[in-house]
Amino acid sequence: MQNTYAIGIDVGGTNTDIGLVRDDSKIISRCSLPTGNYSLLEPYVADIMEQIKAMTEKGDPEKGLAAIPISELTGIGMGAPNGNFYTGCVEWAPNLTIKGLLNFEEEFHKYVDIPVVLSNDANAAAYGEYVYGGAKGMNHFIMITLGTGVGSGIVVDGRLVHGSTGTAGELGHNILIPNGRRCSCGRRGCLEAYTSARGIVQTYNELRKEMGVPQEASHMAGWISPDIEDKDVTCKMIGDAANAGDTLAKETYRRVGEWLGLACANACTFSAPQAIFLMGGPTKVGEPLLGPLRESFEANLLNIYKGKCEIIMSQLAANEVAILGAAALIKLK
Amino acid sequence: MQNTYAIGIDVGGTNTDIGLVRDDSKIISRCSLPTGNYSLLEPYVADIMEQIKAMTEKGDPEKGLAAIPISELTGIGMGAPNGNFYTGCVEWAPNLTIKGLLNFEEEFHKYVDIPVVLSNDANAAAYGEYVYGGAKGMNHFIMITLGTGVGSGIVVDGRLVHGSTGTAGELGHNILIPNGRRCSCGRRGCLEAYTSARGIVQTYNELRKEMGVPQEASHMAGWISPDIEDKDVTCKMIGDAANAGDTLAKETYRRVGEWLGLACANACTFSAPQAIFLMGGPTKVGEPLLGPLRESFEANLLNIYKGKCEIIMSQLAANEVAILGAAALIKLK
Repeated sequence: MQNTYAIGIDVGGTNTDIGLVRDDSKIISRCSLPTGNYSLLEPYVADIMEQIKAMTEKGDPEKGLAAIPISELTGIGMGAPNGNFYTGCVEWAPNLTIKGLLNFEEEFHKYVDIPVVLSNDANAAAYGEYVYGGAKGMNHFIMITLGTGVGSGIVVDGRLVHGSTGTAGELGHNILIPNGRRCSCGRRGCLEAYTSARGIVQTYNELRKEMGVPQEASHMAGWISPDIEDKDVTCKMIGDAANAGDTLAKETYRRVGEWLGLACANACTFSAPQAIFLMGGPTKVGEPLLGPLRESFEANLLNIYKGKCEIIMSQLAANEVAILGAAALIKLK
Repeated sequence: MQNTYAIGIDVGGTNTDIGLVRDDSKIISRCSLPTGNYSLLEPYVADIMEQIKAMTEKGDPEKGLAAIPISELTGIGMGAPNGNFYTGCVEWAPNLTIKGLLNFEEEFHKYVDIPVVLSNDANAAAYGEYVYGGAKGMNHFIMITLGTGVGSGIVVDGRLVHGSTGTAGELGHNILIPNGRRCSCGRRGCLEAYTSARGIVQTYNELRKEMGVPQEASHMAGWISPDIEDKDVTCKMIGDAANAGDTLAKETYRRVGEWLGLACANACTFSAPQAIFLMGGPTKVGEPLLGPLRESFEANLLNIYKGKCEIIMSQLAANEVAILGAAALIKLK
């Protein structure tokens, strides 16, 4: 076998995506399990193993391989909420239906004797960018993932920073505005409270209370109806509206960019990265976010770092990064 | 030679302290040069070499060594403002009388063929704590130094974080309060603007304008006279007054502790350190700072880090840490 193969698993609250990954970053085959159907670790891992078996038995026709023996896989990598690199466990992840301290490494080892590596999803994304994406060859960079929450993965000297606890790299919970907005973590002023999808919707709704939505909005493509209820506004809508020229939506993203730019500038004082990568739904809006972000980043950056750190979008396909990142983690063992 | 010896040099704006350090962290002999007398690199390094020669010729009587050949030293380590680990240069340090890009490594190598390692002073202090002090055996910790400015050194996976530029670890210029107080770097709201000696004096002077100083203050030991001019107040005075029970001075340090505690909590979201060490003049006040600091740290710390990171005072003697730290840097080569 000239190529090597690994399994990458992305554990989400709704779906578990499993992929068979070739070392040239090609996902040979992939499938999905409904995470929410499981309340116990054992049947969940048993079903994952079934899927792995099915995928490996199909082999890699492109390379003329009839089957790939599971024992010859380089390992199983998992990106999971509260996944701890040091222990191989998922630790009390609030958004999973399987509760408690889940020792995935031990459970997988009942079936296979290959490395099993866990980390959280943002760390996996960062490491995927390093091994397969735009961060190849960069020894110092940061990945910030915007979504329901805000996550981050930090690479220093070519290594993922896990810290003394295995849970380092939580820039979403860096307090950006002391005594600011309430965050999902219970504290106030975290980056996540301002730049997650939820935070972006909150800013939009606050702004339209403050400034009112122009009535003509409802007649134009991409704009948000002035009659919509707060709870029905989505981050995607605001992004589309911003690109259609909606003033409130543009102002919303201008503020998000300002906050995120400050956070990126602050991150530079820590590890002086070559680049900060961004990914996730809310970043897809493009210029309405990136313009203000880069402006704020420059304005807030300490002199000695100016011109030395770029803000870049993730170079991996949105529907592949989680699986590729999880598979990449195996290289850390 | 059973023991090994290194040179540690601390380059300050006023004095250059040079020490001959034995590997058991004993400073065998030390001397000082007036940095401000020099405007060129060459004579400065020539004079340092003279001192090194004199110190090594005295040997180590305690170990019965008549002389230590310079060529057998493990190296020369320097902690210097804007010292760049990657280039071996001091880069345009504003508070040095020797200006420009100073290639110390090259200059020393005209005299000796041993490793020459530079980093900034806070990084040196951090690494000294790791090799000789309270951080022995800790793979993840942060050192924050309070003085005229605020510096920091960050250790991740047992290695000093220098970043892509060689100048990582500038937590003093992390923006703590957006649009806050003007900092010496020209931006606003940096940690340094609030917790450096200058920032502490500023807070005290602002408070006494706001609240007035009780007239009885001048009659009590350790307190600050109500008649003193703003410019004559020192950080040391405020520390003494706080320990003597002065309300304004205590309130000053309470605020400093609150700001520093928030900064420490934010640092945890980056590298999840086992400990954050503190050193420098303003920290010597003790409880008036440490009490509020620990309280603020706990209040601002993300749940997953609670109980996992301590705030500790540097375990090295204040007059030795700079030399020991500089000497320790050699282990990084």
